[in-house]
Amino acid sequence: MAALPQYETLSGNWVSPHVFHIQLNRPDRMNAFNPKMFEEIPQAFEFLNKQEELRAVVLTGNGKHFSSGLDLNEAFQAIMPESDDTARKTIKLYETIKILQHSIDTLNRCRVPVLVGIHGACVGAGINFACSADIRYCTKDVKISIKEVDIGICADIGVLQRLPLQTGNDSLLREITYTGRFVSADEALRLGVVSKVSENQETMIKELIEVAQTIASKSPVAVWTIKQALNHDVNKAVIPNLEYMARVNAAMIQTSDMQESVTSFLTKKKAVFPKL
Amino acid sequence: MAALPQYETLSGNWVSPHVFHIQLNRPDRMNAFNPKMFEEIPQAFEFLNKQEELRAVVLTGNGKHFSSGLDLNEAFQAIMPESDDTARKTIKLYETIKILQHSIDTLNRCRVPVLVGIHGACVGAGINFACSADIRYCTKDVKISIKEVDIGICADIGVLQRLPLQTGNDSLLREITYTGRFVSADEALRLGVVSKVSENQETMIKELIEVAQTIASKSPVAVWTIKQALNHDVNKAVIPNLEYMARVNAAMIQTSDMQESVTSFLTKKKAVFPKL
Amino acid sequence: MAALPQYETLSGNWVSPHVFHIQLNRPDRMNAFNPKMFEEIPQAFEFLNKQEELRAVVLTGNGKHFSSGLDLNEAFQAIMPESDDTARKTIKLYETIKILQHSIDTLNRCRVPVLVGIHGACVGAGINFACSADIRYCTKDVKISIKEVDIGICADIGVLQRLPLQTGNDSLLREITYTGRFVSADEALRLGVVSKVSENQETMIKELIEVAQTIASKSPVAVWTIKQALNHDVNKAVIPNLEYMARVNAAMIQTSDMQESVTSFLTKKKAVFPKL
Amino acid sequence: MAALPQYETLSGNWVSPHVFHIQLNRPDRMNAFNPKMFEEIPQAFEFLNKQEELRAVVLTGNGKHFSSGLDLNEAFQAIMPESDDTARKTIKLYETIKILQHSIDTLNRCRVPVLVGIHGACVGAGINFACSADIRYCTKDVKISIKEVDIGICADIGVLQRLPLQTGNDSLLREITYTGRFVSADEALRLGVVSKVSENQETMIKELIEVAQTIASKSPVAVWTIKQALNHDVNKAVIPNLEYMARVNAAMIQTSDMQESVTSFLTKKKAVFPKL
Amino acid sequence: MAALPQYETLSGNWVSPHVFHIQLNRPDRMNAFNPKMFEEIPQAFEFLNKQEELRAVVLTGNGKHFSSGLDLNEAFQAIMPESDDTARKTIKLYETIKILQHSIDTLNRCRVPVLVGIHGACVGAGINFACSADIRYCTKDVKISIKEVDIGICADIGVLQRLPLQTGNDSLLREITYTGRFVSADEALRLGVVSKVSENQETMIKELIEVAQTIASKSPVAVWTIKQALNHDVNKAVIPNLEYMARVNAAMIQTSDMQESVTSFLTKKKAVFPKL
Amino acid sequence: MAALPQYETLSGNWVSPHVFHIQLNRPDRMNAFNPKMFEEIPQAFEFLNKQEELRAVVLTGNGKHFSSGLDLNEAFQAIMPESDDTARKTIKLYETIKILQHSIDTLNRCRVPVLVGIHGACVGAGINFACSADIRYCTKDVKISIKEVDIGICADIGVLQRLPLQTGNDSLLREITYTGRFVSADEALRLGVVSKVSENQETMIKELIEVAQTIASKSPVAVWTIKQALNHDVNKAVIPNLEYMARVNAAMIQTSDMQESVTSFLTKKKAVFPKL
Repeated sequence: MAALPQYETLSGNWVSPHVFHIQLNRPDRMNAFNPKMFEEIPQAFEFLNKQEELRAVVLTGNGKHFSSGLDLNEAFQAIMPESDDTARKTIKLYETIKILQHSIDTLNRCRVPVLVGIHGACVGAGINFACSADIRYCTKDVKISIKEVDIGICADIGVLQRLPLQTGNDSLLREITYTGRFVSADEALRLGVVSKVSENQETMIKELIEVAQTIASKSPVAVWTIKQALNHDVNKAVIPNLEYMARVNAAMIQTSDMQESVTSFLTKKKAVFPKL
Repeated sequence: MAALPQYETLSGNWVSPHVFHIQLNRPDRMNAFNPKMFEEIPQAFEFLNKQEELRAVVLTGNGKHFSSGLDLNEAFQAIMPESDDTARKTIKLYETIKILQHSIDTLNRCRVPVLVGIHGACVGAGINFACSADIRYCTKDVKISIKEVDIGICADIGVLQRLPLQTGNDSLLREITYTGRFVSADEALRLGVVSKVSENQETMIKELIEVAQTIASKSPVAVWTIKQALNHDVNKAVIPNLEYMARVNAAMIQTSDMQESVTSFLTKKKAVFPKL
Repeated sequence: MAALPQYETLSGNWVSPHVFHIQLNRPDRMNAFNPKMFEEIPQAFEFLNKQEELRAVVLTGNGKHFSSGLDLNEAFQAIMPESDDTARKTIKLYETIKILQHSIDTLNRCRVPVLVGIHGACVGAGINFACSADIRYCTKDVKISIKEVDIGICADIGVLQRLPLQTGNDSLLREITYTGRFVSADEALRLGVVSKVSENQETMIKELIEVAQTIASKSPVAVWTIKQALNHDVNKAVIPNLEYMARVNAAMIQTSDMQESVTSFLTKKKAVFPKL
Repeated sequence: MAALPQYETLSGNWVSPHVFHIQLNRPDRMNAFNPKMFEEIPQAFEFLNKQEELRAVVLTGNGKHFSSGLDLNEAFQAIMPESDDTARKTIKLYETIKILQHSIDTLNRCRVPVLVGIHGACVGAGINFACSADIRYCTKDVKISIKEVDIGICADIGVLQRLPLQTGNDSLLREITYTGRFVSADEALRLGVVSKVSENQETMIKELIEVAQTIASKSPVAVWTIKQALNHDVNKAVIPNLEYMARVNAAMIQTSDMQESVTSFLTKKKAVFPKL
Repeated sequence: MAALPQYETLSGNWVSPHVFHIQLNRPDRMNAFNPKMFEEIPQAFEFLNKQEELRAVVLTGNGKHFSSGLDLNEAFQAIMPESDDTARKTIKLYETIKILQHSIDTLNRCRVPVLVGIHGACVGAGINFACSADIRYCTKDVKISIKEVDIGICADIGVLQRLPLQTGNDSLLREITYTGRFVSADEALRLGVVSKVSENQETMIKELIEVAQTIASKSPVAVWTIKQALNHDVNKAVIPNLEYMARVNAAMIQTSDMQESVTSFLTKKKAVFPKL
Repeated sequence: MAALPQYETLSGNWVSPHVFHIQLNRPDRMNAFNPKMFEEIPQAFEFLNKQEELRAVVLTGNGKHFSSGLDLNEAFQAIMPESDDTARKTIKLYETIKILQHSIDTLNRCRVPVLVGIHGACVGAGINFACSADIRYCTKDVKISIKEVDIGICADIGVLQRLPLQTGNDSLLREITYTGRFVSADEALRLGVVSKVSENQETMIKELIEVAQTIASKSPVAVWTIKQALNHDVNKAVIPNLEYMARVNAAMIQTSDMQESVTSFLTKKKAVFPKL
């Protein structure tokens, strides 16, 4: 059982012969997604996919929160291209969004089931990431938010493409997406985002590892085939939706509303947006 | 902020600089859908879509009920074509159903989110209409029914095409569709038709306006893009389903069971239907 | 009203002029699916589809359980082809899986709504079969399990192809599919597999017959059209998914993990599987 | 090598250990499709599919023509249902069209490639049937016509669903479909309906048998898989198109234009149709 | 038989009781598409669709050319929105492209077959328009060009969405699309864009009217159903492709390459484009 | 303009500031595809995609042939996995096929148009590769063959997934696919595989470079968008077809017919295959 290579933003260890526990590991930055983390996630799972003994992965966040979402300090500059021509900017943004989507989609592509435990804040890129996993538990105190509307954009790396297929209340889903408001553990369960609400982070991890070990005790051929079958159905819709969103947002995130939204957020002043 | 033009079947007013409250306004007819209402709904939203300050719409029913559905007195005669040839009748009915579908789909096409509040009876065309909106709340005393089976036909203007994608219990959905029975507020919440049950009509409207105002405080570019993204996914399935249903029903609603069903309903006598 | 022909594995009778009650009838074998049952199910419904007075079917299991799933004694030998060539074996298995899928899909193709009542154990082929019906009720004491993972394979006759479209919590669905664990009545209701939990088998059958009689009192043209419309939407996804799964499993169920799983199950010893 | 069972409308024999030559065999009726032929086609191919040595089928027409299409004398009465209710009539017609489509689609479902040779007249049901095969040759003197427009209906058993995917000139395809005019061998080759024009029926059969024997000399696993792969792509579009057409025509062929068209055809008088 | 209302850009007359001949009528501007023409095309066909005797339409261009494409003088200013925000500009362009697509798609939506005759230059918007018709003939001297690449953009109003489905040589199609070069009559026939090459404009119109009259002599129910069936298949792909292209081009046609391309075209100087 | 890195199997050079000419470069092995070539193709195009001045690529084969297809000596051993379990073997083969498909699909993913010139033999993997390009020319003496049937398998890396969408004669396509026979230049043109037949390799390369230079003189934004638009339409069908084929062949190429076919090919003895 090989040890995880050293990463800046991730840590992890084997918790049993077939189960690996991996953690988002920027606790001082609330596990915000910076360019490094987008880069290391696919690398780490490429490593894990090669571990022939691996049969299930548990993924949680180190520290007080699962993830505060995109690291506004670091990520924005890396994403925004320089060009005088809108079309060339759009091409570059399209290609960048595809790369971010590919990173976030890593859990979906993982050869074995990925079980995510969410606690504290789970916001923006964080909930996008969690939704590309197989199974989600959360703690009682979780605060989930599809926060993108608050920075003036539409979520384009998975959550809006996946949740309509994963949950059972489109009205509630739209309410939380249009408002960016926090969703409680109970609401998350009712909406169908998580399958169980655990008492706290410790018990949640314990419960997830137990489920992971049950999975690991089954035929790996059977489990691989089941994941392929369930993903086949979902991906028929999700992959075109991700492509569509990348096309649309490549233009839309050039909006000046993003600056206005972020400034408003940082200065706590009410944002004023021009009409459409 | 321009005032809503005068309509026979609709009324409304601005409740804040970016939020418009529109009402089905045939309270003496329980807001039944007559030809005029089908005609005025797209007109009113064409007007609203041109209001550049508009960022969210709240839609409710004036009087004791959201809507009793199709106005049997007025609508039927308008819909049924005269022709000796079944094929020609079918062509005309197909074209008529497409027009009704287009009217009911208005909320889906609205440039901004539409929040519907349902109270009292919400039946047939009423629930079809509500399901083309973004967000649905209802009052505790609501009585929802997909009533079409009781007039001998299959719902063809949206509800059967939308609900399977919006909710999370196909078994329950089929039960209420095959039987036409009333669905309570609690069941509607469990099924996933509404995102919240409000105490009464007054509080429901207040709560919806609050949500609408939250949405109106966000970037209109972001909200527009989110609605486009969510609709893109849904419409890929819904538009072909509506087309399919229009084709099927153009023939099927020529059935004599409709007369038998309506007579039975009006005379309270048990309907007797021939075998298939 | 013609009587049901004599079958080895099924029994049934008219409970009202338009409602037929059919039962899985191998109580001493916990209604396990043997080759005979796969064969008789489409035959029985071909008979029922020709009964012009039929307007709804109630289907339950005779004895203490709805069904324990595939009859391991009888079914396996019948399914596994003899050939030295993997490709030829795969072709034969593909053709066999298509036949089993066709049998299980019988309820979906039935001309009238089928209401299934589940009690006791409802496992493997049993839950696959129930999920091809229109409406599902269960008793308080039901124990549902998508058990295929425990015999080293992925379910390929409907349940994994249907449930993602019928329910509203993908995370929970994956949890029970990867682990094969039992699902309680409450969880089944929350997941969206059933529309109601009945007190016991007797009341469940009574309640289902009542719903069936309500359906039977409606226009058969309307009910036929509604079922066609709802199935049209679902089958667009389900039919390709069944085809896909038949292709995949035609190879995958040749795995030696199946033998190991079954032996482990019978001997209660921990199964040991080679790495992927 | 078992001999073909006796059929009223079909004959055939083995021309080599792996190649079977089957013929439409109603030469005195120009191989018109009567109910018996629709019935015997799937039966004959069910027999052929069970011949384990079979690797290719050549199909031609006995007599002066491949087929004159639907047998107007016999087929119409068998198809048209008796009912006072348009909806019930539509249901029965829908179910009948599905059965005819299933018969015509037999060549597509055949386990091995089917090579069709067309000579003389190939009209209506004849060209529908030929288009469900894998490979088509024709003689120099062939006269192909998608004739349905001349009996007042739209082709609904395959040709309009298949040719747009099989050929490369939509403009020409529409021209011959809207007019019902004859297509020459050269035009058929240019349109892409046939892959070769043979000198006469004798050489055509010889050439087809040669191709069939080449196919029969290849790995049957490879050929089976290639046919599955090519059909998979095509059927994704064709199967929904057939279903759609069955729905539409179940109503449309109730038109009185059919009587007018047939009368006009038989009496050589100009048909007069009412406006739409 | 009502006369065509007066239009600035279109003229036409009845050539027989059921056939209407309509012409693009800006001969001094080579029938270039200006905003007025985009507006009048759907209006004229809305008028024609209401003519109950109409059974086929022939459409040609008045003067020496079918159409030189977009009227660069008039159309551009009308299309380009004013806004400082890329996102808002993109929204407006998206909505404008949808309107232009709707105009060009008019022939596809026409209730009866539309037969287009192309002569002289048929460029850009002209070939987009022709490709939404049912049948295309051209004269020997025709010069067809998918010219959009020469003004720095990708065709987004139909031709790239339709031709891949209508023709049979993807390699040739890409060659003429990437280069914008002229296609001769022979090449057009080989590619599958037209079904016949006529001697000259006069004979072409005569031949098209003959085909139109043959169509008009058939059952209008049959012809309507055939067009619906063929369009159903095509539109399943074309409608999403048009939507996709509108999304992509709403950003891409903001490129500065368009200015450079047009300047180069007008000044005959070689265009110099920055790298991607 | 950076030089192409050194590759074992590929060579190339800039032929103008925006056009690169790349060559398959194993002339002594008839440019057969060995594992190294599959590996280097995506690497070379990753390099080319980063060349900001690149606007078109011309791809031909060095030596007497474009490509003789899979290198039977080297490729087979690399592909065939070792495992006692059919399912595990199938998983590994599936993953290998996906990698080969990804390599062959490189031309489709290239940011700029790729123009392929085919001469001499173009067989198996060679024609698969050529079909993922944008434009294809061939020489008069070309001999194209979809040869896979002759080694006992179905082509699974693109040609069967692409040609049905690119060409216009399904009957001819099936004929050459089932028989593996050679296709002449004229037939290739008629089928729609190539857009032009050139006199010889020298003139073909000259003509392709001319077309490439014309493309390179256009706006790169326009050309990029056109390729994206045309690929979008095609890939909607091709990507699922490739996935499907990878699933099917992961089992089917384990057939013993492959050994029999190859032995027969090498020993010139007639292959004898068991029945299905």
